[in-house]
Amino acid sequence: MKRKHGISGFPEWLPEEKRVEKQLVTLIEEIYSSHGFTEIETAAVELMSTLASKGEVDKEIYGLVRARALDDKEAELGLHFDLTVPFARYVAQNFNSLDFPFRRYQLQKVWRGERPQKGRSREFYQFDVDTIAIDELPVAADAEVLEIQSKVFARLQPVVGNYLIRINNRKILLGFFSEVGLDAEAQEQARIIIDKLDKIGEKGVRAELQEKLALDTKQIDRIVEFTSRKHTGADAIAFLKELSFTSEQFLKGKSELLELLGLVSEETLSSLQVDMSLARGLDYYTGAIWEVHLDDHSEFGSAGGGGRYEGLTARFINKKLPGVGASIGLTRLVELVLSKSLMPVDTKCPTKVLVTVLSEEQRINSNRIAEVIRGEGVPAEVFFKTQKLGKQIAYADKKGIPYVLFIDENNTEISVKDIRAGEQQSVKDIALWSRNLADA
Amino acid sequence: MKRKHGISGFPEWLPEEKRVEKQLVTLIEEIYSSHGFTEIETAAVELMSTLASKGEVDKEIYGLVRARALDDKEAELGLHFDLTVPFARYVAQNFNSLDFPFRRYQLQKVWRGERPQKGRSREFYQFDVDTIAIDELPVAADAEVLEIQSKVFARLQPVVGNYLIRINNRKILLGFFSEVGLDAEAQEQARIIIDKLDKIGEKGVRAELQEKLALDTKQIDRIVEFTSRKHTGADAIAFLKELSFTSEQFLKGKSELLELLGLVSEETLSSLQVDMSLARGLDYYTGAIWEVHLDDHSEFGSAGGGGRYEGLTARFINKKLPGVGASIGLTRLVELVLSKSLMPVDTKCPTKVLVTVLSEEQRINSNRIAEVIRGEGVPAEVFFKTQKLGKQIAYADKKGIPYVLFIDENNTEISVKDIRAGEQQSVKDIALWSRNLADA
Repeated sequence: MKRKHGISGFPEWLPEEKRVEKQLVTLIEEIYSSHGFTEIETAAVELMSTLASKGEVDKEIYGLVRARALDDKEAELGLHFDLTVPFARYVAQNFNSLDFPFRRYQLQKVWRGERPQKGRSREFYQFDVDTIAIDELPVAADAEVLEIQSKVFARLQPVVGNYLIRINNRKILLGFFSEVGLDAEAQEQARIIIDKLDKIGEKGVRAELQEKLALDTKQIDRIVEFTSRKHTGADAIAFLKELSFTSEQFLKGKSELLELLGLVSEETLSSLQVDMSLARGLDYYTGAIWEVHLDDHSEFGSAGGGGRYEGLTARFINKKLPGVGASIGLTRLVELVLSKSLMPVDTKCPTKVLVTVLSEEQRINSNRIAEVIRGEGVPAEVFFKTQKLGKQIAYADKKGIPYVLFIDENNTEISVKDIRAGEQQSVKDIALWSRNLADA
Repeated sequence: MKRKHGISGFPEWLPEEKRVEKQLVTLIEEIYSSHGFTEIETAAVELMSTLASKGEVDKEIYGLVRARALDDKEAELGLHFDLTVPFARYVAQNFNSLDFPFRRYQLQKVWRGERPQKGRSREFYQFDVDTIAIDELPVAADAEVLEIQSKVFARLQPVVGNYLIRINNRKILLGFFSEVGLDAEAQEQARIIIDKLDKIGEKGVRAELQEKLALDTKQIDRIVEFTSRKHTGADAIAFLKELSFTSEQFLKGKSELLELLGLVSEETLSSLQVDMSLARGLDYYTGAIWEVHLDDHSEFGSAGGGGRYEGLTARFINKKLPGVGASIGLTRLVELVLSKSLMPVDTKCPTKVLVTVLSEEQRINSNRIAEVIRGEGVPAEVFFKTQKLGKQIAYADKKGIPYVLFIDENNTEISVKDIRAGEQQSVKDIALWSRNLADA
C-alpha cells in the first residue's frame, strides 16, 4: 500500500488496517475479561521523578514542555515508556479504593523518546494483564496469567501459526549460579549475560562470563551446559524433578515451577518448553518468567511474555504487594499480521448494507429504511448523493460493503443485491431480512 | 470516593468508574458504527509546524523533548490538542488510499499544555465523527451527522435527561451582518463578539459592538434583536421562511438550514432550536453549526457540537474537500455522570461467577468448571487462594460479582448462590446454567 510516510516511528493505520487491529484487540480483551480482569487506564504522563529509576533518567523518555514556555526547560512531566511503572504507581495511589487481589488489564500506547531510526517505534500499544495481591499471592495466580497468555496465542493460531512458550524461574537460574560459586551480585550479572545468548551466542557468553566475572573454565562449562537444557511436556517435569542442587533459592524455584506446570491446562502444558537459558531482561522479576515465540516467524523475536514479581510497588507504597503479569506487544503483532498479510484486509468500514437513492426526493424514504436495518443491529449507510446506480454500487464494492439495497421510484418495492455473489433478490420484509443477516 | 490525587488535570478512573466510561463509549461507538462510520487513530504527536497555525504556536501545546537530551530545546514534535488537525492531516496524507466520502470516527485523548489549574483538564478524551468528500458534499451529510449526534443524546436521555440542540448557519449570521452594513472583516469580528453573549450578556455585546466595530445604535439594535430569535419545530421553519434579506450569502445559509431541517427525523427536529445567537468559536465552520445542551445540567455548558466546514485540509493538500463533523467531550461527560452519580458505579470487574475453592487439591477441578462457564460466554474467576468460604463470598460481594459457585469435597455436586437475592440452588448442568445466564 503506497502512501506518504508519517513521522518515523509513529505508525498509523489505514481504516481497513485499523479494523484488523480492532479484531485482535477484541480477541485479546475477550480472553482477559472472561477471567474477570477489568480494564484500567492511566494518564499518558507521569512525573519525571516517577519515570526515573534511582533518581536517574536512564531510559529513552519524552519529556513534556509547554510550547509557549520553551524556556522553562524543566520537563516535570514525561510520557510513560511502559505500562508497568504507571500500573505500580496507580495501585499504590489508589490502594485504599481497590479490592485485592486486584486483577486488571490495560491497553495503552507507550512512548520511547529515541532519535528517529529505521525500524524503531517511538509510539506503540502494549496490552498488559496482571494480578496483584496483598502479602501473599499463590503460584495459582502465575498459572492463570500464563494460561491466559497461552489462550491468546492458541486463539491466534489460525493467524500466526504455532507458538512455543519458553519458561523458567529466576530462582532456579540464580540458585544454580550460587551452586557454581557466584555471589549475589555476580548472579545478577550472569543472568544479564545469559539473557544475551540469542544475540551473542555461546562463544560470546563464554567470553563475557570470563571477562566480566572472572569465572574459570569449569564454572563456565557448567553454566553453558546447564543453560543449554530445554525440555517439553512430561520430559520437562522429569528433568526438573531430577535436579538436586541444594541451594534454598534453587529448591524454591524448582518447587514453584513444578507447581506451576501442574496447574496449567494440558493444552498450555503442551506449548511450554522449560528452558534453562531463559533469563529475561527486566530487573523486577523474581519467580516464573516466560516468553512466547512464533514457530513460523522466528525473526519476530518474542510475541509476548510475563512473569512473577515481588517489589514492583515498593517505590510507591510501604506494603508487600506480590504480583504476576503478562504483556503483548500489540502494535508489533499488528505490524506482523499486516506485513505478511496474515488476515484479510478488505473491509474498509462497518457498513453491511448500502441503501441507494434514485433522487433527492427519495432520500427520506431511504433514510427510513436504513433506520429499520440499523434497528436490527445491522450497520447501514445511505449513499451521500444522487448518482447513477452503477457509481453507487461501485462505491459499495470499493469499500467492501457486501449488500446494496434498491428502492423503486414509487417507494414500494425493495430489492437487495449481494455484491460478492452477484445475486439480486426482492425483499418484502426488510426488518426480517436484516434480522436474518444479523443472526447469520 | 477519597483517594490520593494524581497529577492535576490528568484524570484517572477507578476500575468501576472506567467501566462507566466504557459503557458510554460502547453506546456512542454503536451509533457511529451503525451508520457505517469506521474508526481511525492517529499518532499522539504531530510536527510542531502542523500544530502551529500560520507559523505561530498560539495554542497551549505540549512539546516533546528527549529527556536524555534536554539541551536540544527544539521541540520538533508536540501532542495534538484536538482531533481536527490530525484528521485533516491524515486525510491529506492518505488521500490516495482512502475512499470518499470518507466517513470516520475517532476516540482519542487530546492534550492541552496549560499550567496546572483547578478545574482545567490537561488530558481528556474527545469522540469525533466526520464525513469528508471530494469537491461536493450535499446537506444530506450534515443532516446525517446531526442526526447521529442527536441519537447519542436521545439514547443517553435516561442518564443525563433531556437535551436541546441549538442550531444556526454561519452564512445566515454573516449574511445578516452584511445586511446591517458590516464588511467581511467586521462580520467575523461581530461573530466572535456574539459568541461571547452567554459570558458577557447583552450589555457586554452592545459595548463591544460599539467599541470594536464602531457600530451605531440602530445597527446594534438590529443585531441584538436578530440574535435574540430562538424558534423550535414548525415555528422555526416558519421563522426562517419569512426572513427576507437579500444578501446572497444569507439566502444560501437560509436554504441550507431549511434543507437540513427537512432531512432530519421528527425526533431530532423536536430537539432542535434554531438560535440566531449561536456563533460557535471555531474558525473553520462555514455552514451549519450546532451545540448540544442538557436541560438538567445547564452549568455543564455544551455537551457536544458540530458543523460544516470547507477548507479544513487546505493547509495540507491542494484539493477541495468539504466536510461535516460532530464531537463529544467524552471525559467531561464521564465526569458529569460520576460527579452526579447518574449511572450505577458498583461492579468492579466483569466477573459474573466466582468459583470457590475448598482446598488447593480442588483447584484444578474449579479451573475446569470455570472454563465451562467461560465457554458459554460468561466471565468467571476462580478464587485465588484457599480461604474460608465466608471470605470468598465477601470478596465477591465487595467486587459486585453476582454469583458464587460451590463444589462439594467429592467434586460431584455444584451449587450456585445468587448474592443479591440471597438464594442458593443446586446445579446439575453448569453449561446449561451458564448459557441461560448469558442469554438473560
